Amino acid sequence: MSDNLFAPQSIAIVGASNKKGKIGTIVTENILKLGYGGKTFLVNPSYKMLKLKRCYAALSAIKKPVDVAIVCVPAKFVADVVKDGAATVKNFVIISAGFSENGAEGAKREKELSDLAKKHKLNILGPNCLGFIAPNLKLNASFAGGLPSAGNIAFVSQSGALAVAIMDKAKEEHLGFSNIISVGNKMQLDETALLEYLENDQETKVIGMYLEGIKDGVRFLKAAKKVSEKKPIVILKAGKTAKAQQAISSHTGALAGSDEIMDVAFASAGIIRANDLDDFFNLLGLISFADAPRNGAAAVITNAGGAGVLTTDAFKGKEIALAEFDEKTKKQLADQLPGESSVQNPVDLLGDAGEERYKNVLELLNKKEIGSIICVLTPQEQTPVQKIAEVIVEAKKTNTAAIATVFIGGERIGSAVSYLKQNNIPNFANPDSAVEALDKYYKWSVSGKRGTSAAGKKSPQRKKRVTDIIAKAQDQKRGALLFPEAAEIMELYGINCVKAYAILPGSPVPEVAEFPVVLKIDSDKVLHKSDKQALILNIKDKGALLSAIDKLQKNFPGAQLVAQPMQEKQTEIILGIKKDDIFGSVIVYGLGGIYTEVFKMVDFLIPPMSVAEIKSSILKGKLKFLFEGARGQAAYDADEFAAIVAGLMDFALENGQVREFDINPLFIYNDKRKASAVDVKIIL
Amino acid sequence: MSDNLFAPQSIAIVGASNKKGKIGTIVTENILKLGYGGKTFLVNPSYKMLKLKRCYAALSAIKKPVDVAIVCVPAKFVADVVKDGAATVKNFVIISAGFSENGAEGAKREKELSDLAKKHKLNILGPNCLGFIAPNLKLNASFAGGLPSAGNIAFVSQSGALAVAIMDKAKEEHLGFSNIISVGNKMQLDETALLEYLENDQETKVIGMYLEGIKDGVRFLKAAKKVSEKKPIVILKAGKTAKAQQAISSHTGALAGSDEIMDVAFASAGIIRANDLDDFFNLLGLISFADAPRNGAAAVITNAGGAGVLTTDAFKGKEIALAEFDEKTKKQLADQLPGESSVQNPVDLLGDAGEERYKNVLELLNKKEIGSIICVLTPQEQTPVQKIAEVIVEAKKTNTAAIATVFIGGERIGSAVSYLKQNNIPNFANPDSAVEALDKYYKWSVSGKRGTSAAGKKSPQRKKRVTDIIAKAQDQKRGALLFPEAAEIMELYGINCVKAYAILPGSPVPEVAEFPVVLKIDSDKVLHKSDKQALILNIKDKGALLSAIDKLQKNFPGAQLVAQPMQEKQTEIILGIKKDDIFGSVIVYGLGGIYTEVFKMVDFLIPPMSVAEIKSSILKGKLKFLFEGARGQAAYDADEFAAIVAGLMDFALENGQVREFDINPLFIYNDKRKASAVDVKIIL
Repeated sequence: MSDNLFAPQSIAIVGASNKKGKIGTIVTENILKLGYGGKTFLVNPSYKMLKLKRCYAALSAIKKPVDVAIVCVPAKFVADVVKDGAATVKNFVIISAGFSENGAEGAKREKELSDLAKKHKLNILGPNCLGFIAPNLKLNASFAGGLPSAGNIAFVSQSGALAVAIMDKAKEEHLGFSNIISVGNKMQLDETALLEYLENDQETKVIGMYLEGIKDGVRFLKAAKKVSEKKPIVILKAGKTAKAQQAISSHTGALAGSDEIMDVAFASAGIIRANDLDDFFNLLGLISFADAPRNGAAAVITNAGGAGVLTTDAFKGKEIALAEFDEKTKKQLADQLPGESSVQNPVDLLGDAGEERYKNVLELLNKKEIGSIICVLTPQEQTPVQKIAEVIVEAKKTNTAAIATVFIGGERIGSAVSYLKQNNIPNFANPDSAVEALDKYYKWSVSGKRGTSAAGKKSPQRKKRVTDIIAKAQDQKRGALLFPEAAEIMELYGINCVKAYAILPGSPVPEVAEFPVVLKIDSDKVLHKSDKQALILNIKDKGALLSAIDKLQKNFPGAQLVAQPMQEKQTEIILGIKKDDIFGSVIVYGLGGIYTEVFKMVDFLIPPMSVAEIKSSILKGKLKFLFEGARGQAAYDADEFAAIVAGLMDFALENGQVREFDINPLFIYNDKRKASAVDVKIIL
Repeated sequence: MSDNLFAPQSIAIVGASNKKGKIGTIVTENILKLGYGGKTFLVNPSYKMLKLKRCYAALSAIKKPVDVAIVCVPAKFVADVVKDGAATVKNFVIISAGFSENGAEGAKREKELSDLAKKHKLNILGPNCLGFIAPNLKLNASFAGGLPSAGNIAFVSQSGALAVAIMDKAKEEHLGFSNIISVGNKMQLDETALLEYLENDQETKVIGMYLEGIKDGVRFLKAAKKVSEKKPIVILKAGKTAKAQQAISSHTGALAGSDEIMDVAFASAGIIRANDLDDFFNLLGLISFADAPRNGAAAVITNAGGAGVLTTDAFKGKEIALAEFDEKTKKQLADQLPGESSVQNPVDLLGDAGEERYKNVLELLNKKEIGSIICVLTPQEQTPVQKIAEVIVEAKKTNTAAIATVFIGGERIGSAVSYLKQNNIPNFANPDSAVEALDKYYKWSVSGKRGTSAAGKKSPQRKKRVTDIIAKAQDQKRGALLFPEAAEIMELYGINCVKAYAILPGSPVPEVAEFPVVLKIDSDKVLHKSDKQALILNIKDKGALLSAIDKLQKNFPGAQLVAQPMQEKQTEIILGIKKDDIFGSVIVYGLGGIYTEVFKMVDFLIPPMSVAEIKSSILKGKLKFLFEGARGQAAYDADEFAAIVAGLMDFALENGQVREFDINPLFIYNDKRKASAVDVKIIL
């Protein structure tokens, strides 16, 4: 995408008008009247002159460079406008509605538009969008009224109406924007393209996005990983409530909700997910105003004990924590403060605190290893609210910690809070919100280099063999692989399976070396093998095996059977691949057994990841108790398990055609015995 | 407590003054200048006249009825003031600080004050409090400035400074108060006494409390249960972060955090717990303005699709849910609205919606079974914000649903939002906050009659026997009971224990009827019986038993041993009693086994409860999967388990002297075998 789409030196408005209430009129006025300094061209064949300017019949008539064309004509004329302009204009913002959001005919129009974009190598924002706003250029190329303040927040919105509301609220919060971009139908310029553009936009410190969907999850995560190393991405993702999922026949598939996968995917890319609209504003305000806390140690200073306790409570379950002051610090605080003050953290300055106490304590804390400072205030009779705001603003100039305030009240604090925000101090009406936002900002800052994880080496031979096995099953019109086939594939990916003897109808029974064995039906028709009809346990010798075979073959005529040596169970793991609509193959793993769904000790991983990253995730995940050795149990082997997951991830990356995949159970041991997959289900 | 404390017809101010900045001066001015219509008497021996009024030397000099005395003199004079006035004044508000919050001397003063209160049957609020405010009487008997609006919220605060901030913010939110009461040190009038008073206060619709501690948890819950049947109690409880707990030697004790117990206790009494300060305001505003949703069906109407999706998301995990409209309703909506509108729920009125569309849809929904309606609005160019606010206010007059709004924005919605609040429509800037508050209000309304639960019948004989057993152990300086003693007690409470043969040093070995057995040390010194040194499993016959006894007696000379028939394990439960600092004995039960702490399938119950209530809690709790029969397993017996828990609760209520108590494990079966306690630890 070229820079001059969002920072144009010349703009044409196609569908410019002066009829009241028309979108073309609003856009024309927004561009002409708010101070934009670039060249502007009006296009509308119905006028010669408009707003005292020459009006062109078509883009092609302009004959001067046009960086971007804003198109507000009815949907049915849009393709003609683009065709006419494509030779000279490369960037289009299609505000017009009536495309894929609007039935089959609209979808056809959008397809035509998309083809034109490809053919002429155009950048198209929209269609069906609000437009964009670049406050620093005093450019409002949208049909939202007014001009927000210039600042360092880039805001990308999939909802125009919400963008209007957010801009209105942002004004109240003294937040400023580098860009506001409405993506509309995201026909071509989607969230990924905009991330890539904003990555290098010098004015943008933080990228905020309101998204209802993600167009290409894999591409999006890759871009987000890269961008979030440079600047925070805060996303308010709507649509948490799951759509009806397509029929799921694997067990792992049912364990993963799409919103949980969204959480994991965002975390894997260093994206900060906002809980709700309030959190979204809080995060944008904090990040816009403050640098990230340089460490996890926080200090709270307050003129009200109760508000201090509420703030302390807010640290529960967070990564940032109240610093423990050393004796020297406490002594220094005590020297500054009246005898009844608390020199613990929170520092209680007492109800009669003036600005000097805040000032002195802020100065003192500046010399300590503190990453963030929250200044709490309640407006008591003696409280000089404005003066305290002033010393906090002053302290920010030299303080290395991220400073936020929690001024609680209404009228008595109103103008001081405005003053704080005008001077880039984020104020939170609610202590919990302050800590929540600081914690997320801090976690983003330490989440470190992510880059693109290298998955294991791809192996064309291995992939060929898998393709052959699958092709054979498809030829035979089977919906799933047989266990010996699945086991062969697993071994190719380094996953050990329990030995299996295939017993084919009409073929001689193979020599079984180890008894006792379990005999079961191996068929995609019988998916729940624990079904007692399809399973005979604890077969002690060859004679018993033959009669068991007889019995099952009677129950399921023509079915293939499989005999496996009985395994001693220690701990059961379930793992598999879930196909997510957005992010593609997702690895699911967790504690198996009959209560898998009850305990929900399940985690998700988004490929690709290196074995080291996988291991580190496992050791931080819900199963860490196994690999740490909880309650006096010997630890299970994290390296072995990480290698198994890595094998599964390689399989997922190499074999996109597999719809669902379960290993259930995988037995793992903490006594040096090798982990082995007892059952593997590969659904085509 | 007499009504005339908080609704006095006459007030004396002891320590009245006109010196600038003195608390006595502020209180005097607050009472004299804000319009209070009752009689006022100033008391200060240094003046004859003050503020153009006669000034009395002492309370006893007034010789006219005084409903309440507000005391602002230094702490050391307070007792004398009370003694002097006690004959004629029954209600005192002690604003003065310098009592138990202030070291040993202060504590002594508070004791003296407390003794005076008892001796003279006085009601004392404070000491060390802000005072109280009764806006409807235009009475500000505190040293906070101004007079909040009159309304239906009673606010009780353990922090004066926070009360000031909350009053200031409440003004902005157009919230009005029936009472604002600062409880200070809660020497005598504590949260329970105030609940009891506010229960019958006609002007109070909702009671909001900011509490840092609870003085007598059992008494408090009893009162709260009763009050919350009539009116909602909303509590912002500070101090979530656990204090260092005292050394805990039982297993169940370690499973229960004090804040989790607080949650359960509040829920058991129908108290609505606010998550944080924002939630507290949201709940007070909603309940003050609206009636509780009459059912759990919610409708959302919006002029912005995106905001509608965010609101839909907010219902995730809630008890209230978006109503499914029937075909007739959809047809009726379609008749009212433009073709592109969504007539699903949320109803999307489209971006160009005027007030008529809101009006028509609200009228239509009023005829449906809808419990709550959320009107969402973003201020788009065409949006007549104020007119829409007006039709919502109008609709509220006839609508049977609870109506809330989510107007999102800043300047463009500011005056309309004020208009809404002035007309008792709660507005939420954040969709999630609206749904959260409505859901809590709804849950309160359906939580039903709680009353006082009858526990099982007390049995003096049973209690006597327990007392004797414990006395014997104490005589022998044991810190815990031996298993046969504990088992005898359990049987008294109807809890079946595994048979145990006590093997005493030097006594003959009893005849054991069932092999195999397990042999273990039975001593309070060896608490973790799974310690391999102290336990021998699977003893097959008498000979093996004798040599096992020999071995353990060598390892632990002089120890008492116990032999138990080996039990087949199916499901292990852990249960016990935890002594909570605030609420006394709390029953803890959950899934046992080595991963108890990992799975945290643990619930808490606060006695007293009937067996039926216990069963219903169990079936709603974390172990419901066992009693429902998850994943094709037969269900375990909920009645049997409820009876065991009830037995434990009776034990807890009858035997307060027991410090901690564990049954770990209790084996339960889903095949008609009787549940039995394998080990019981009663710590004295």
